[in-house]
Amino acid sequence: MFDVRPVGYVIGLLVATLGATMLLPLGIDISMRNGHWPIFAESAIITVLTGGLVALACHNGVGPSLTLRQTFLLTTLVWAALPIFGAIPFMIGETKASFTDAYFEAMSGLTTTGSTTFSGLDTLPEGLLLWRSLLQWLGGIGIIVVAMVFLPELRVGGMQIFRSEAFDTMGKILPRAAQIASQITWIYLGLTVIATLGYLVLGMGPFDAVNHALTSISTGGFSTHDTSFGGFQGAPEYFASVIMLVASMPFVRYIQLISGRAEPLFRDSQIRAYLAFVAAVSVVLALFQVFYDKEPLEPSLREALFNATSIISGTGYASVDYQEWGSFAMVVIFFAGLVGGCAGSTACSVKIFRYQLLFASIRQLVRLLHTPRGVFMTRYQGRPVGQDVLNSVMSFFVLFTVSLGLLSVGLAMTGLDFTTSISGAATALGNIGPGLGDMIGPSGNFEEVNVTAKWLLSAAMLAGRLELMAVYALFTVAFWRR
Amino acid sequence: MFDVRPVGYVIGLLVATLGATMLLPLGIDISMRNGHWPIFAESAIITVLTGGLVALACHNGVGPSLTLRQTFLLTTLVWAALPIFGAIPFMIGETKASFTDAYFEAMSGLTTTGSTTFSGLDTLPEGLLLWRSLLQWLGGIGIIVVAMVFLPELRVGGMQIFRSEAFDTMGKILPRAAQIASQITWIYLGLTVIATLGYLVLGMGPFDAVNHALTSISTGGFSTHDTSFGGFQGAPEYFASVIMLVASMPFVRYIQLISGRAEPLFRDSQIRAYLAFVAAVSVVLALFQVFYDKEPLEPSLREALFNATSIISGTGYASVDYQEWGSFAMVVIFFAGLVGGCAGSTACSVKIFRYQLLFASIRQLVRLLHTPRGVFMTRYQGRPVGQDVLNSVMSFFVLFTVSLGLLSVGLAMTGLDFTTSISGAATALGNIGPGLGDMIGPSGNFEEVNVTAKWLLSAAMLAGRLELMAVYALFTVAFWRR
Ligand SMILES: [K+]
Ligand SMILES: [K+]
Repeated sequence: MFDVRPVGYVIGLLVATLGATMLLPLGIDISMRNGHWPIFAESAIITVLTGGLVALACHNGVGPSLTLRQTFLLTTLVWAALPIFGAIPFMIGETKASFTDAYFEAMSGLTTTGSTTFSGLDTLPEGLLLWRSLLQWLGGIGIIVVAMVFLPELRVGGMQIFRSEAFDTMGKILPRAAQIASQITWIYLGLTVIATLGYLVLGMGPFDAVNHALTSISTGGFSTHDTSFGGFQGAPEYFASVIMLVASMPFVRYIQLISGRAEPLFRDSQIRAYLAFVAAVSVVLALFQVFYDKEPLEPSLREALFNATSIISGTGYASVDYQEWGSFAMVVIFFAGLVGGCAGSTACSVKIFRYQLLFASIRQLVRLLHTPRGVFMTRYQGRPVGQDVLNSVMSFFVLFTVSLGLLSVGLAMTGLDFTTSISGAATALGNIGPGLGDMIGPSGNFEEVNVTAKWLLSAAMLAGRLELMAVYALFTVAFWRR
Repeated sequence: MFDVRPVGYVIGLLVATLGATMLLPLGIDISMRNGHWPIFAESAIITVLTGGLVALACHNGVGPSLTLRQTFLLTTLVWAALPIFGAIPFMIGETKASFTDAYFEAMSGLTTTGSTTFSGLDTLPEGLLLWRSLLQWLGGIGIIVVAMVFLPELRVGGMQIFRSEAFDTMGKILPRAAQIASQITWIYLGLTVIATLGYLVLGMGPFDAVNHALTSISTGGFSTHDTSFGGFQGAPEYFASVIMLVASMPFVRYIQLISGRAEPLFRDSQIRAYLAFVAAVSVVLALFQVFYDKEPLEPSLREALFNATSIISGTGYASVDYQEWGSFAMVVIFFAGLVGGCAGSTACSVKIFRYQLLFASIRQLVRLLHTPRGVFMTRYQGRPVGQDVLNSVMSFFVLFTVSLGLLSVGLAMTGLDFTTSISGAATALGNIGPGLGDMIGPSGNFEEVNVTAKWLLSAAMLAGRLELMAVYALFTVAFWRR
């Protein structure tokens, strides 16, 4: 028999923890005297109690280790279950959202996607706004742990390349996760404080500064304003670009950095390729603005840098409606979003290291063309890469592309137009945030999207966040066959 | 030293042959007394003379065999050089096309893409119309030979899976090509005759019947009318669907069939998957029409079958503007075009067998998830598939997707809009024909596309037709390094 109790136990604990964090928005609503705090009291009680009861009920089934199937199930179920509870404040609070909208919003938060179904953000109670930001912040740290511990161990999407040698058996996955989580938490907290201070210094109010710090460092992209970053043009855009870049680089390098080893950070080829790509896209977009639209250089470069970084890191803020830059910018931004940031960070989408591995593998193939019996090893960061890693990476790429196609078809079936369907599929699978077009573009939101499409997008955010295979495997016969 | 003379010799002969086929449009122009025949006389003389001189000049360098590099170079140069001569009648003839437009048209013909830069087809001299059709017919038979002989031998895009056991050394590639070409020619001619007779019986005039037979059997899609197949609704649509399906299935099965072995045709899993896919897309499109737009069943099913088959086989006729069916049809047709027909036929794009191999490989990966040390062999058509084939297929998929992205960006840079850029890139790389949107959609053509974009599209048609790697390899250092 497959024992789901260890899975239920961990999920129960995490749900209870999510409930406990509701005390933060509760606190801010009390201090702001906006009369909205009972919503969070209610939500917290429901969530902590449910989580606690589930954990208690499953407690007797917890052994020293998780099997591989249990770990797979845990990873997906955590991200499917938490949004149910994260959604409660949106349903009973001032947003009075339907379950569809509330679940979408919470999923968009916890997966750090940042697509929103709400408009009129500027007038919402502070607690609700903080709750959206907190969901992203929690989701961000959660995904770093999953990307550093679970996915490499589950050998999903080629992430096994980041498997640490120090890391031995499956049985120890939970202690290891706890250890990494505590290291990461300090770094993540520290970066959040730095981001907050920076935004404060550059002129944001304290509440905006905290919220944008929470959603920058998680590459989440929720804002406290309908205009996203439109109200913070100038220096905050440069600062936010740096924060988003930091947030989308491998966090293991920061662990090494604070333990005194800086050179892995500077020698990481993934980081170099990533920064080069962001710089290239920014410069191209800026030059296009300067030469074709005769815009001055400084704002063009700043806006290009900010919005390109925002999309490529998967954050999804917008400081202008870049669709007004023309179709070239739209196409560049669409495909740049499918590149994504670095593995082992809060960034999403296909990610730089996969392109590096894929191109390295294609280079070997060209060599094999003229030396069919040659043995060429694909290398990454100086080390040889096993065929199993390459197969995982290539399969991820195929799954991502095919998912993009099928999801686009599904979205179009619900009546969305061509651009909205394709860009909506990309933004959800890549956990980016905004799509293209009038409806879900950087100036719009997902409020008017139909119910079926919202559920499709919620599922896609989940699958995309967990590198597809961690979710898809659960739906295959081959996975459950003994 | 790299000896280009054997390459030049073959290209010279093929150019001269192309020149000789100009006698056919010359003949029809004489018999139609439209006064246009001197154009083809002139073109034929230039082409035959140039080709003959090149062949003569290179004659002394021809040895008994081609090296691998020579074969690569030959494959690409043939498809780059022939359109130069195929373009002559369009430049000096009534179309008075620029070299850009004429080369684009000839490339679109020889790669069996079928995108056209001409409007007012119905009033063009018969010779020019027949020339367009002949370019596709010649390109179609050419590509079958390349797909059956050259690409498997060059191990491009996983085509080595179709490498015949009977086929031994590289040295014999030209005799083998000649042998296959002669077998295929009879089948191809026979099918063309059948198609012509069918179209005649179903009501087309003799000239239309011949031209549409030539461009159906080559999945080319050039028509003699601006409205494409719009004037032949009804029974001809069903018949054309069958012809297009036959043209996009592996021709090796027909060789086997006429030598008395029918069961390989019926047991080919690629054919089964292909027909199932076409049927599924047709039914979904038809049902969507019936239920949402309250259209009657028969025309809906017929139009869905014809237009879906046309896109998936890579033919590119349109009998209606399916964009009027709504965004669902547009998205389905966009992605269906990226699936494509069967290998070893005149069909293009990614092709069914690659998806079969990719999914089989992903299935093995799922099995490996829970049995990490297991050894699972990916199988295709009952036989194990080597990792080198899987790597080639996956690399093809990555190259195709990345090319699609870069080409879209390039097209958008020239000023084309989002839908036109993305669908234009797909239709050129997949050798399909029509794109989406007002400009290059099924009711439009490529006349108004800017010059830069036309050259990008011409290059993409060439690369797509030769399965990318046969062209890209020539541009890598690794390929030329000793
Ligand atoms: K995001
Ligand atoms: K075509």
